[in-house]
Amino acid sequence: MGKTKLADYLFTRIHEAGVEYSFGIPGDFVLPVYAAQERAGVKTVVMTHEPSVGYAADAYARLKGLGVALVTYGAGGLNMINPVALAYAEESPVLVVSGGPETRFRSGKPQLHHCVKSFQTQYNVFAEVTQAQTILSNPALAQQEMDRVIDGVLKLSRPGYIEIPRDMVNCEIDTAGRAPASVEGRTPALSEAVEEIAARLNEAERPVLFTGAQLRRFHLIDKVVALAEALNLPVVTSILGKTSFPETHANFLGTYFGQFADPNVRAYVEASDCVLCLGVVLTEMETGGYTARLEPDNLIQVTAQEVSVGHHCYAGLDISALVEALTERCTSKLTPAKRFSLPRLDREDLSAPAANKELTVLGMIEDINGMLSAEHMIVCDVGDCLYAGLSLRTNTFIAPGYYSSMGFGVPAGIGAQLADCSRRPIILVGDGGFQMTGMEISTAVKMGLNPIVIVFDNASYGMLRFVDQGRDYYKLARWDYAALAAAVGAQGAVAETRSDFQRALKEAASSKGVYLIDARIAEDDISPTLRRLTDHFGKKVKAAIA
Amino acid sequence: MGKTKLADYLFTRIHEAGVEYSFGIPGDFVLPVYAAQERAGVKTVVMTHEPSVGYAADAYARLKGLGVALVTYGAGGLNMINPVALAYAEESPVLVVSGGPETRFRSGKPQLHHCVKSFQTQYNVFAEVTQAQTILSNPALAQQEMDRVIDGVLKLSRPGYIEIPRDMVNCEIDTAGRAPASVEGRTPALSEAVEEIAARLNEAERPVLFTGAQLRRFHLIDKVVALAEALNLPVVTSILGKTSFPETHANFLGTYFGQFADPNVRAYVEASDCVLCLGVVLTEMETGGYTARLEPDNLIQVTAQEVSVGHHCYAGLDISALVEALTERCTSKLTPAKRFSLPRLDREDLSAPAANKELTVLGMIEDINGMLSAEHMIVCDVGDCLYAGLSLRTNTFIAPGYYSSMGFGVPAGIGAQLADCSRRPIILVGDGGFQMTGMEISTAVKMGLNPIVIVFDNASYGMLRFVDQGRDYYKLARWDYAALAAAVGAQGAVAETRSDFQRALKEAASSKGVYLIDARIAEDDISPTLRRLTDHFGKKVKAAIA
Repeated sequence: MGKTKLADYLFTRIHEAGVEYSFGIPGDFVLPVYAAQERAGVKTVVMTHEPSVGYAADAYARLKGLGVALVTYGAGGLNMINPVALAYAEESPVLVVSGGPETRFRSGKPQLHHCVKSFQTQYNVFAEVTQAQTILSNPALAQQEMDRVIDGVLKLSRPGYIEIPRDMVNCEIDTAGRAPASVEGRTPALSEAVEEIAARLNEAERPVLFTGAQLRRFHLIDKVVALAEALNLPVVTSILGKTSFPETHANFLGTYFGQFADPNVRAYVEASDCVLCLGVVLTEMETGGYTARLEPDNLIQVTAQEVSVGHHCYAGLDISALVEALTERCTSKLTPAKRFSLPRLDREDLSAPAANKELTVLGMIEDINGMLSAEHMIVCDVGDCLYAGLSLRTNTFIAPGYYSSMGFGVPAGIGAQLADCSRRPIILVGDGGFQMTGMEISTAVKMGLNPIVIVFDNASYGMLRFVDQGRDYYKLARWDYAALAAAVGAQGAVAETRSDFQRALKEAASSKGVYLIDARIAEDDISPTLRRLTDHFGKKVKAAIA
Repeated sequence: MGKTKLADYLFTRIHEAGVEYSFGIPGDFVLPVYAAQERAGVKTVVMTHEPSVGYAADAYARLKGLGVALVTYGAGGLNMINPVALAYAEESPVLVVSGGPETRFRSGKPQLHHCVKSFQTQYNVFAEVTQAQTILSNPALAQQEMDRVIDGVLKLSRPGYIEIPRDMVNCEIDTAGRAPASVEGRTPALSEAVEEIAARLNEAERPVLFTGAQLRRFHLIDKVVALAEALNLPVVTSILGKTSFPETHANFLGTYFGQFADPNVRAYVEASDCVLCLGVVLTEMETGGYTARLEPDNLIQVTAQEVSVGHHCYAGLDISALVEALTERCTSKLTPAKRFSLPRLDREDLSAPAANKELTVLGMIEDINGMLSAEHMIVCDVGDCLYAGLSLRTNTFIAPGYYSSMGFGVPAGIGAQLADCSRRPIILVGDGGFQMTGMEISTAVKMGLNPIVIVFDNASYGMLRFVDQGRDYYKLARWDYAALAAAVGAQGAVAETRSDFQRALKEAASSKGVYLIDARIAEDDISPTLRRLTDHFGKKVKAAIA
């Protein structure tokens, strides 16, 4: 039992979880929290707008295991609902810490600035997009409440919300040692599931491992690599799960998402007699708009929420315990497992015709793949930049591949590089996404970071134009992105042709700071993946609109 | 009884309310709604980011009586919670129309893109920041539900939310004629209140009329001008209520907000024996952080929520009916009322020393006041630009003067000019606010608008620095705002000195398009009003932080 200031306890826990940087924008209700954070040695990266705060914290969380957003009340917190909703949907462990009005004001009418209907409004809103939430109004419960929310964020890998009234920040609270987190036992249900999955694998002729984002969220990638190697299983990843298995690994086949994946990858997966999905939630995006042809008889699904084998389910199993037990089971020398052979797939041809002088998405994919090394990571916004990004060979890939919120790319690149300074981000962003949050490159300059930002500049919301041509409101104003970069202290180049792009990419590679390439592509040029998608869905959407 | 497509009914009602432009960003869930809107002849102004959509619709609503924001599900709607909260707090009639997933998907798991916890999530979030809300999932109730929400928005002047599942947009619905809106009767309670207020005025020696934002919201300005003229009452306005009484009117004294107003205005109001507040909600902001010294014995408060005279209240009175009846009572030739004499107040000296070469906020106030005419309106962001703006003499002033959300200024200027094309907006914005949403000037260029944007560029969150100096996180990256303007097709100039500023302002006045002035002011230079504020509150905040 000890005594400490409330905010000091909070930041000690945050620091213990490995967080060096939080993200935020200061405001009067949160100033005492900022001051407390400074004492604890956590540094706040001040972004330019709250949506960016959320995206940066999310990307940081995906790589570090916890990301912290530090915002003021109302105008701050409520301006970050969408990124937190994204983090909820995509299971990213973001902790939102918001300042708030003093407890002593809360019995009256909420006629303070930044207030809406009641002093409960912001809490209620966050309750819809977080898995745990609290307002720290009672010193006697403060530690318990902070622990509950933080432990929940870490355990479930989903966002939490802590609101600190201004007069509680420096309040002395009693603290007690925490009980160690309970270790999930290897229950009989777990053993039964492991044995059944192992038996299914043993009976299979042509199994495939299909890995998803939860493997990264629950730190299970190494385990799954060991599993794949032990059985020599071929591996595909989902969209959101891209790089949940290392793409430079010999067993990696490609990305699978129904009808829109590389056709050879799709054919292999859909002919498999045992698809073992680990950490993939089969959402609309992961299944390519439900076009995935995965025979339920042959399907095993292991997620943090549920485990199913064929047509039956196991409830209440822990994904980490299960993956660990299954890996042990399959790598054990005592129970030798069958080893499979890897298919030789002809990869989709992603080289652009050499004769083409104009800049195309295909040419960009080829050129970026040509420069990628282990020292890079890919961070994508939404749109064709995401579909193009799926064709890049990398071991670290961050994108809002399920919730699909535009504006994620640039701020996420900042969060990602601060979480892992050993890799230089290559940020792919459409012009629509850049116009939302792209000026955040200023924050990258301020922090001494050096992402390469590639703007897919086709002067339109390209995805929409491809499902439903010819509407005025799909057109985007053309910005001089290279000039914008220069105006905030970054380097910029315009690429009108393939050779411009190659030259710029080379210059970017040797540059020390933020480098933006304005990649001007034709309005009707898209990636091979988006071409497959729009061919399929365009008709449906048109019918719905008419 | 007729038949019509659901969305056609919606946009017919919107069009009837006088709306020519809506604001939005297209996305797949809302595409059919956009197409329906095109049929109805309402034009969507596509902004670059959803927070801007909300601010623009809010400003449009403040001038037109209804503003419409048209967004996609999740990534769109949830990215606009803060502006809608602002509209709720400041009583602006914004109607949010969101697309949504098909009703037929809503029985399953919400594993679609842009979805969070459940199909109810976005509705629940909006319920916290709107006064009426609906999901149109039942054709039989659709008209009734749309009418309920729209009538509520118009009547209460607060935001509403309508969500249209994609398969409902073009659904045929039965429509019936609407009952005419009930006219608020002149109830006995209303007559009693009017008589009591009139009697109080008659007994007073030194009354003052204190007008607020609700007069504009409920279209009562002309009535109140007639009232002031009949009795020759001196008039002050609140912060949020600035220009709720025309500032060029002879009876207008100035803006009152407790200790921080022009000292002469403050002294006059606080010595009054009858302060008649019409449409002012006495929030923290309107009372200068509760420093207003208004004797309850002498106070009459008429708001949309409540009427109080001295220490007693009248419940359930309609503000419009009351103001109309009071004006009739006092302007009637049958019951001649006392006429008061206007005080001669020495106005606060707002001229900057002529010897000063450097650019100061005081100098900018003087120069802008020197160029203002009836063909201008002032639109302010939050920060010292707002406090400086309070010193400008204008008849149209739009600012988030209560909720205080940064980023409002530039997009609101766009909404305001589209609502009233007879006035050219002068937008005052701090560098912090500009970094949030200022690139929206691109949308002004696209729409052929011509606001003058004045960036108060002190490379910091100035308000925060003045209450608590010397924190790193108050510093802002310096952007070359003039170069940014040029990069999106606007004109820009940098003003380092007073004469630079005067030259730029002159050039701006004769320019045809968007003109941005990067007004570089010293870090420690602030408006006289903010100086009074920080002198008063700085100590308190410092104590709270320590």
